[in-house]
Amino acid sequence: MAEQKKYHVAIVGATGAVGQKMLETLEDRNFPIETLTLLSSKRSAGKTVRFQDKEITIQEATPESFEGVDIALFSAGGSISKQLAPEAVKRGAVVVDNTSAYRMDPNVPLVVPEVNEADIEKHQGIIANPNCSTIQMVAALEPIRDAYGLKRVIVSTYQAVSGAGNEASDELRNQSEAFLNEETYTPEILPVKGDEHHYPIAFNALPQIDKFEENGYTFEEMKMINETKKIMHADELHVAATCVRLPIFTSHAESVYIEIDQDDVKVDEFQSKLANAPGLTLEDDPANQVYPTPLNAEGKRDVFVGRIRKDLDQPNGFHLWVVSDNLLKGAAWNSVQIAESIVKNDWLQQK
Amino acid sequence: MAEQKKYHVAIVGATGAVGQKMLETLEDRNFPIETLTLLSSKRSAGKTVRFQDKEITIQEATPESFEGVDIALFSAGGSISKQLAPEAVKRGAVVVDNTSAYRMDPNVPLVVPEVNEADIEKHQGIIANPNCSTIQMVAALEPIRDAYGLKRVIVSTYQAVSGAGNEASDELRNQSEAFLNEETYTPEILPVKGDEHHYPIAFNALPQIDKFEENGYTFEEMKMINETKKIMHADELHVAATCVRLPIFTSHAESVYIEIDQDDVKVDEFQSKLANAPGLTLEDDPANQVYPTPLNAEGKRDVFVGRIRKDLDQPNGFHLWVVSDNLLKGAAWNSVQIAESIVKNDWLQQK
Repeated sequence: MAEQKKYHVAIVGATGAVGQKMLETLEDRNFPIETLTLLSSKRSAGKTVRFQDKEITIQEATPESFEGVDIALFSAGGSISKQLAPEAVKRGAVVVDNTSAYRMDPNVPLVVPEVNEADIEKHQGIIANPNCSTIQMVAALEPIRDAYGLKRVIVSTYQAVSGAGNEASDELRNQSEAFLNEETYTPEILPVKGDEHHYPIAFNALPQIDKFEENGYTFEEMKMINETKKIMHADELHVAATCVRLPIFTSHAESVYIEIDQDDVKVDEFQSKLANAPGLTLEDDPANQVYPTPLNAEGKRDVFVGRIRKDLDQPNGFHLWVVSDNLLKGAAWNSVQIAESIVKNDWLQQK
Repeated sequence: MAEQKKYHVAIVGATGAVGQKMLETLEDRNFPIETLTLLSSKRSAGKTVRFQDKEITIQEATPESFEGVDIALFSAGGSISKQLAPEAVKRGAVVVDNTSAYRMDPNVPLVVPEVNEADIEKHQGIIANPNCSTIQMVAALEPIRDAYGLKRVIVSTYQAVSGAGNEASDELRNQSEAFLNEETYTPEILPVKGDEHHYPIAFNALPQIDKFEENGYTFEEMKMINETKKIMHADELHVAATCVRLPIFTSHAESVYIEIDQDDVKVDEFQSKLANAPGLTLEDDPANQVYPTPLNAEGKRDVFVGRIRKDLDQPNGFHLWVVSDNLLKGAAWNSVQIAESIVKNDWLQQK
C-alpha cells in the first residue's frame, strides 16, 4: 500500500473563533499534514497553540509565509484575504477562503461539497467558502432540489453571536450577567462592530446582521440570496431572506419555506430524501417532541432538519427548520471538507 | 357635563403575568371603575394588591363572585374560562376572555379593536381576546389589507417566554444564571409545561410553542392561522406560521412575508399606510439602524413595524418585522381596549 501523501497546510486567522475550530477539525479528521503553519495579525503573533501534541508558534502573516504551502485556509477578514490570498496562490498554494472577499467572483468556485463538489476542480487557485447561514440552508435543500426541483425559498434566520467573532460571544456573556444583576452594560460590538450604533443582544433580538445595503436588505440577507443561487447553479431560483441575531452562543437556526416543482409530494417521502442525504441528520418526530435545537447541534458537523410540514394552502409548499453549528459546517468544517476533497481528488493544480 | 358612568370590573387570574398587566393598564388608562373585584384560584386567594392607593384582597373565583359585575376580564387558563365565563354571563357580566377557550366559537367575536372593533357589538356575553402573536400581526397587516388587499401571509415568530407565564420567565432567569456559572439546571417548564419533555431555553431556540397537533403544526401555529382569518373576516387568506420560543423575557417579534393584491406599490407608500394607522409605530430607517427590537417595545402599548422591503422577485411581495409587548398589546392592553370600546359604545347588553 502506497504511503499517504502529506501536505503543508497554513491557517490564516488561527486565533479567531473560526480559526480555532479549523485547528480542532483538522485534528479530529486526522488531515494528512506534513507541516502546519499558523498565521495571524502582528498582534497575535508569538502565541503558541497545541496541535497533535506539538506546540506551534503563531507567526505574522506576510506574502513570504506561503512559500512551500500546499493548502491555505483563510479566515481573518475580507481585507486580509484580498491582500494575501493572491500572494499565496502566486507561491503555488490553493486557498480556501472563508471570507466574503471572493465569493461572488465568477472565477472563484463557491462550494458546499454536498451540493457542488465538482466545482472545486475548476479553481484558479482560490475556492470560496460560503456564508455560514447559506451553507446549512443549501445543504438541507439540495436533496429536495435534486428530487423534486426547487422554485422558491423564503428564509427567516435565528443566528448565534459567535458568527460575529469571539468578542461578540464575550459581549453576550458579560451583558447577560450584567442584565441578570440589574447592572448597566454599554454595547460596543453587536449588531455590527463597524457600524455606527450598538444595541443590547442579551434577552433581545436584533434584525440586523452586517450593514445595510441601499435596497434596505442587509449584506447578510443579500449573501444568502446571491450565494444560494451561485452554489446551486440556479439563477432563476427565487430566494428571500430576513436575518436576525439572537442571544445564542453557537448554532444558527432557520425557518425555511420552499416551493418545489411538484404538487403531490408527501411529507414522509420528503423526509426520507433528507434522512438519506450526506451531511444531514433528520430530527423530526413532533409526537415525541423531537426537533433540532441550537444547543443540541453545537459541536457536531451535520446539518439537522426537522419540523417538516406541508403548507396548508400551497400544494407545492413545505416548511422546515434547519439547525447547524455555525462555526463547524458554517465555517471550519466546510473549509476542511473542501480541503479533503482537493486532496482526495488530487485537485491541487489550478485549471 | 354629565358625570361619567362607572363600572364594576372583575379580573380573573389577577396574580398571573397577564392579570398583573391588566391591573396596571386599567390604572394607566384611568378606566371608569366603581368597584374592582380581583379573583384567582384558591391558592392565591387572600393576597392583597394595591390599585389606585387602595388595598384590594384577592378572592377565590366562584360563580357567585360575578354577582353585580359589569365587565369581567378572564386570564386564568382555558378550563377556568370554560367553567366560570358562562356563570359570569348568566349574572349579567360581559366577559372579555384572554384564553383560547372561546376564540373559534362562531358565536363569540374575536377582536383586535384596530381591525374589527364593530364585531364587539354582536357579542352574546363573551368576547374573545386573540392569541398574543396573532394580535400584533393583524394590527400591523390591517392597514395594508385595507389599502391594497391581502392574499397571503407567511410568518416566522421570535417569541418571549413571558407568554408561557411567570414561571417560564423565572426558568429563563434561573437557567441563564446557571448556564453562565457552568452549573447544571434541569428544565421543568419550557417549551410547554403540560407536555412530556422539557428543554433548555437559555441561549437556545425551541421550535415548539404549545403542543403539537396531528398535522405536525403546533397549536400556537394553528391559532395564528385560524384566528387571523377569523379576525380579518378572510377565510380565503392563505396564512402559514412557524412559532419559535426564544430566550427573551418580554415582547414577541415576527418576520412576516406578505403578498398583496397590487404589483406596483412602492415601499414609501407602504410605510406611510403603517405610519398613519392607529396603534402602530413605524420604526424603519435602515440607514440609521432604526428598527424595532423586543427590549425597546417592552412596556409600550403600540405595535412596532420596521425592516419593510419589497421582495426582490415577487412584485406583490413585501417583508416586514413586527414587534410588540406580548403582555400588553398581546394580552392585557388588547383586553382593556375591548372593555373601553364596550363602555364607549354602550355595548354592555348582549345581542
